Amino acid sequence: MSREFRYQRRVTFAETDMAGVMHFSNYYRWLEEIEHAWWRSLGMSVCTHDGLQSVSWPRVKTTCEYIRPARFEDVLDLSLRVTRVGGKSLEYEVDFARAAEPIARGTTVAVCCQIDRGGIFRSIEIPADIRAKLTG
Amino acid sequence: MSREFRYQRRVTFAETDMAGVMHFSNYYRWLEEIEHAWWRSLGMSVCTHDGLQSVSWPRVKTTCEYIRPARFEDVLDLSLRVTRVGGKSLEYEVDFARAAEPIARGTTVAVCCQIDRGGIFRSIEIPADIRAKLTG
Amino acid sequence: MSREFRYQRRVTFAETDMAGVMHFSNYYRWLEEIEHAWWRSLGMSVCTHDGLQSVSWPRVKTTCEYIRPARFEDVLDLSLRVTRVGGKSLEYEVDFARAAEPIARGTTVAVCCQIDRGGIFRSIEIPADIRAKLTG
Amino acid sequence: MSREFRYQRRVTFAETDMAGVMHFSNYYRWLEEIEHAWWRSLGMSVCTHDGLQSVSWPRVKTTCEYIRPARFEDVLDLSLRVTRVGGKSLEYEVDFARAAEPIARGTTVAVCCQIDRGGIFRSIEIPADIRAKLTG
Repeated sequence: MSREFRYQRRVTFAETDMAGVMHFSNYYRWLEEIEHAWWRSLGMSVCTHDGLQSVSWPRVKTTCEYIRPARFEDVLDLSLRVTRVGGKSLEYEVDFARAAEPIARGTTVAVCCQIDRGGIFRSIEIPADIRAKLTG
Repeated sequence: MSREFRYQRRVTFAETDMAGVMHFSNYYRWLEEIEHAWWRSLGMSVCTHDGLQSVSWPRVKTTCEYIRPARFEDVLDLSLRVTRVGGKSLEYEVDFARAAEPIARGTTVAVCCQIDRGGIFRSIEIPADIRAKLTG
Repeated sequence: MSREFRYQRRVTFAETDMAGVMHFSNYYRWLEEIEHAWWRSLGMSVCTHDGLQSVSWPRVKTTCEYIRPARFEDVLDLSLRVTRVGGKSLEYEVDFARAAEPIARGTTVAVCCQIDRGGIFRSIEIPADIRAKLTG
Repeated sequence: MSREFRYQRRVTFAETDMAGVMHFSNYYRWLEEIEHAWWRSLGMSVCTHDGLQSVSWPRVKTTCEYIRPARFEDVLDLSLRVTRVGGKSLEYEVDFARAAEPIARGTTVAVCCQIDRGGIFRSIEIPADIRAKLTG
């Protein structure tokens, strides 16, 4: 199973809201950002194409718990842990912290899908080469 | 307990992603939009000010399950149901549908907070006038 | 030349920033929203497909002047005026107002493009049926 | 006058749209991100507080020209040049490039403002300490 993967990012102005904190929906964009950085760290991309079709990982469930607010220019440390690799699905959780102080925890369940030219998603078994990287 | 509240919105181009569907993070923005429309329908706003401080409802947990993708210019029907009014917290769930076909289901747990001038959040008992509306 | 087209929208919480006003980048999303509502009012969509390829209107230039801030739950009145229909391009401007008070003015220059399956954009003469609607 | 300031960022999935490219509105968020990174490089922040009020730089005009599309996971090089420091205003332009290939050029005119506790913006002469850094 993949070890913990780490990623760091600073809260931008556009990510704050009138309450003076990072808008709660933006944690989900960061959840995706660390996932994609992790795919790159494995020598892959979340989207692969073979000319005719794409393989990608649409989400089937996401959650986030908010512990403390994050503010403009805060630098957050994210860490991703894969919690399950199923036949067709992948689950992971991400902790958000600021200088070791917990800020939030998010989770994602994503399903391996082929996307054909008409944009139709069809779930598939995780291809062997991708599985090898996920569990290597 | 408040009855079901309904809201309708069209998927915008900026809400789509390169997979050709509404980006999963945007469901959370819609979850907030219907909540705020519901507050207005009760004659309130999610944020109230009394000059010195604000009362608002930061989220402590949100979740979303994605059933089918939504696409550009789809008109989605949202319905919100309050599932719990606690001492300090409020829970609701929202169904997203397109012509009666389920698209997604989201949930929110929000906590009633005072926000002082320094931007510090402190959870409080739901004020009586607000509780009366929520449970009326 | 198309007459003025009108559109109304309320500022959402997620569109505000820590300065307590609508984030300046969101005016550009509204600029696109009114344009797409206008295409629909003409019986079209900004994106048309004929199976093999798409015709769409990528932007080549956008501008916005900000006159007064817009705040959470403000209802803004937008009006779009086409200012030029060229051989391959379309230009329009949009006024944003709150109860007749000017808030902002944005402009867009968009170019008619074919998008092939590889995602490559190629500018084309505006097709006759679309031109007829734009200038009708 | 400040020299050129450089910043690099990767296009995220959430920044793409169904045309498969970075949504045009997101260039404006990047315009702001490089500006804020530049303020930090000068030992400042775009927002300063003295307890009673804030000094910030709301935009009065922004523009962007789009030369080539940017795609998911592209790494873009941004460079910011201050083009004018007025009595109350600041103007700069930003070039976006991918491996020396021009992608876009944006401009911003921002005005130095005090924001009081009621959230009211009032334009002011650029304070001497800030001006010294901007022109140093």
